Amino acid sequence: MSEQIKNRIEDANRQAVERVLRSRPILVDIKPAIEVLSGMKKNSIFHAGPPIEWKRMSGPLRGAIVATMIFEQLVESWDEAVKLIESGQIEFSPNHDHDAVGPMAGVISPSMPVLVVKNEKFGNTCFGRLVEQKVQFGVFDEDAVQILKFWAKTLGPALGKAIRVSKGIDLKSLMARALHMGDELHNRPVAGTALFASIITPYLIEVLDREELVKVTKFFSTNDIFFLCMSMAACKTIMNAARDIEYSTLVIAMARNGTDFGIKVSGLGNEWFIGPAQMIEGRYFPGYKHGDANPDIGDSAITETAGIGAFALANSPAILSLIGGSAEDAIKYTKQMREITMTLNDTFSIPILDFQGTATGIDIRKVVKTGILPVIDTAMAHKQAGIGMIGAGVVRPPLEAFKQALYAFGRKYRL
Amino acid sequence: MSEQIKNRIEDANRQAVERVLRSRPILVDIKPAIEVLSGMKKNSIFHAGPPIEWKRMSGPLRGAIVATMIFEQLVESWDEAVKLIESGQIEFSPNHDHDAVGPMAGVISPSMPVLVVKNEKFGNTCFGRLVEQKVQFGVFDEDAVQILKFWAKTLGPALGKAIRVSKGIDLKSLMARALHMGDELHNRPVAGTALFASIITPYLIEVLDREELVKVTKFFSTNDIFFLCMSMAACKTIMNAARDIEYSTLVIAMARNGTDFGIKVSGLGNEWFIGPAQMIEGRYFPGYKHGDANPDIGDSAITETAGIGAFALANSPAILSLIGGSAEDAIKYTKQMREITMTLNDTFSIPILDFQGTATGIDIRKVVKTGILPVIDTAMAHKQAGIGMIGAGVVRPPLEAFKQALYAFGRKYRL
Repeated sequence: MSEQIKNRIEDANRQAVERVLRSRPILVDIKPAIEVLSGMKKNSIFHAGPPIEWKRMSGPLRGAIVATMIFEQLVESWDEAVKLIESGQIEFSPNHDHDAVGPMAGVISPSMPVLVVKNEKFGNTCFGRLVEQKVQFGVFDEDAVQILKFWAKTLGPALGKAIRVSKGIDLKSLMARALHMGDELHNRPVAGTALFASIITPYLIEVLDREELVKVTKFFSTNDIFFLCMSMAACKTIMNAARDIEYSTLVIAMARNGTDFGIKVSGLGNEWFIGPAQMIEGRYFPGYKHGDANPDIGDSAITETAGIGAFALANSPAILSLIGGSAEDAIKYTKQMREITMTLNDTFSIPILDFQGTATGIDIRKVVKTGILPVIDTAMAHKQAGIGMIGAGVVRPPLEAFKQALYAFGRKYRL
Repeated sequence: MSEQIKNRIEDANRQAVERVLRSRPILVDIKPAIEVLSGMKKNSIFHAGPPIEWKRMSGPLRGAIVATMIFEQLVESWDEAVKLIESGQIEFSPNHDHDAVGPMAGVISPSMPVLVVKNEKFGNTCFGRLVEQKVQFGVFDEDAVQILKFWAKTLGPALGKAIRVSKGIDLKSLMARALHMGDELHNRPVAGTALFASIITPYLIEVLDREELVKVTKFFSTNDIFFLCMSMAACKTIMNAARDIEYSTLVIAMARNGTDFGIKVSGLGNEWFIGPAQMIEGRYFPGYKHGDANPDIGDSAITETAGIGAFALANSPAILSLIGGSAEDAIKYTKQMREITMTLNDTFSIPILDFQGTATGIDIRKVVKTGILPVIDTAMAHKQAGIGMIGAGVVRPPLEAFKQALYAFGRKYRL
């Protein structure tokens, strides 16, 4: 490779990572997906990870799709849903291809409320599906569907109203604070949820009647995990600001659909580079064991892509009670990620490492050269539709995806 | 010392520390001090630390007393206050002698609302002054007095109503969670405040009208430090459960009035053991320097007495940005406290040390034998009345207090 090309790549990466660091994601609204997501039609179902057709989909993704179709009143049962899907009347597409992200199965349908996050610095807007404990893990029973109805009818409109009155919530500064409060903002967004609740409550009081107010504020105090959706949407907004920079080897998305793991790279346009989704090493809830888990699933690895999640695991030793491992491991993971990234974050930092920034901006060249794979902490879904979350742990992506991206990079830029 | 006496001390300490660990402080109410504090009269002023007369009081304590007398409408100015005090018409007494604690100057007057915390396990009740940023640091201007009026008129009654409707807030479990969220619950109670706000908000909604509701919820989102008063009152309630156990060498209180530092010991009744309040090593706000600071002041060292605060500093590396020092120092302090304590806490734990409990229950024998003094992290007040907080840092108490206690112990038990 010529010195000139090398310099060109370095320049591109400097520019890309500068846009990552300067991004300022602001939560500006919550709206039904069909009103804001590009390319969403009445028969669209968007999902986590790279593109996949129904017959290759894993159990939890299928379960989430069926639950969502019931929520949309397209069907009333699993069998009806399968029939409609197999007749070709549902159009599937990855969230990431529409500037959106969703946790676990990550299924987004037209009526579903989504977070609208605007990058105050660069003007790009991204979207995030809310977080719950059922549908996104593949559960499709009446209780699960009920949660989506609560969102669409109560939570989404209520929060949307309050957010609009607030004139926007600065997610990045909130996230920086939460990272100093034991969160890594992927599997542990507890402080983020509490801080968000504390910020939004006065606005909720302003815009809601008492009955709605009680419902919505009680929701926060019993849904510690809620802020994950904001963290994800903020990270997507941050990383999308670094898209399409020619010659950049920056990873701008890592996502899993439960079957495949895919990445996107700044200098390689909209193309996905794929490998098989991996099995998670971690802890199971009582009654479940290794063979029960589905492979890695969800768009939530956008947090690691943006330099938090497991890249900030040293901030969240408390999470180890959930995923297994020692505090020393957490620090080791956090430090190891410096080997494959472009910079240390200047907003997201690690007090226990004397406030050094988190490793930020994965470089496909460094991953392939070192063989060190990004670390991701994640929940585990049961491999069968209808069962749900069965544990949590740590996973690494397949090297293959990074190698393919590097080959494609070589081809595109004739290296 | 005979083997028999040694065993008796060990038994007493086991019993004492067991009561510390088993205590369950529940916040049950907020009431005007005069309605709940034993021995409080209309002309009483209670304060932080051991007993002290006006002429030996430091600037910040004097300032806080004057502000509080203005709040009580006893006087309108500094000069009037001094005149009234010097005429002997005000009765001063330490908070600790009335089962109460207050931050910094810690001044409690009859109309001031105080937290009422009941030990669900052992039945004892303690009280805590609320936290603010002015009067407790010695500021006595109109703005400062206004805060006390807001408490007495709005915040105290509103929170009191909500707490009563809630049937009590379990402070210990809340504190255990906050300790896993970057708090050490003395100088950093940020997560505690957010968690408390999140728990109390639905009850506030239930009992307040919209105008009050906006005022009170906005207060939480802008007063990160607020939970300190709950942490302190909970710790006092915990430690008081271990009072008056014959032969126990457990420290049940450490407190400073800005001039003297005092401790109380379980086996030594209500007696104070005193040494000079020490200077704090730490960081100053811009414009202030070493010579400006008052010696150590406040009842807040009750947190360290109960095994949190600087005894849990490894949980709060973020606090080091406030008080100076490295993350390594935080871990070192935390581990060092094991040398002078009786046990590791089974509720308050340290994720970064693989969830080991915090060092809990200071033993006067171990302090004197090792020469290792308890570490306390604390705010600094300006030594002149009227100026306020000028920084924060770390301080150790005078060994003298522990030595005197040990002599007294020897005398009492004829060792």
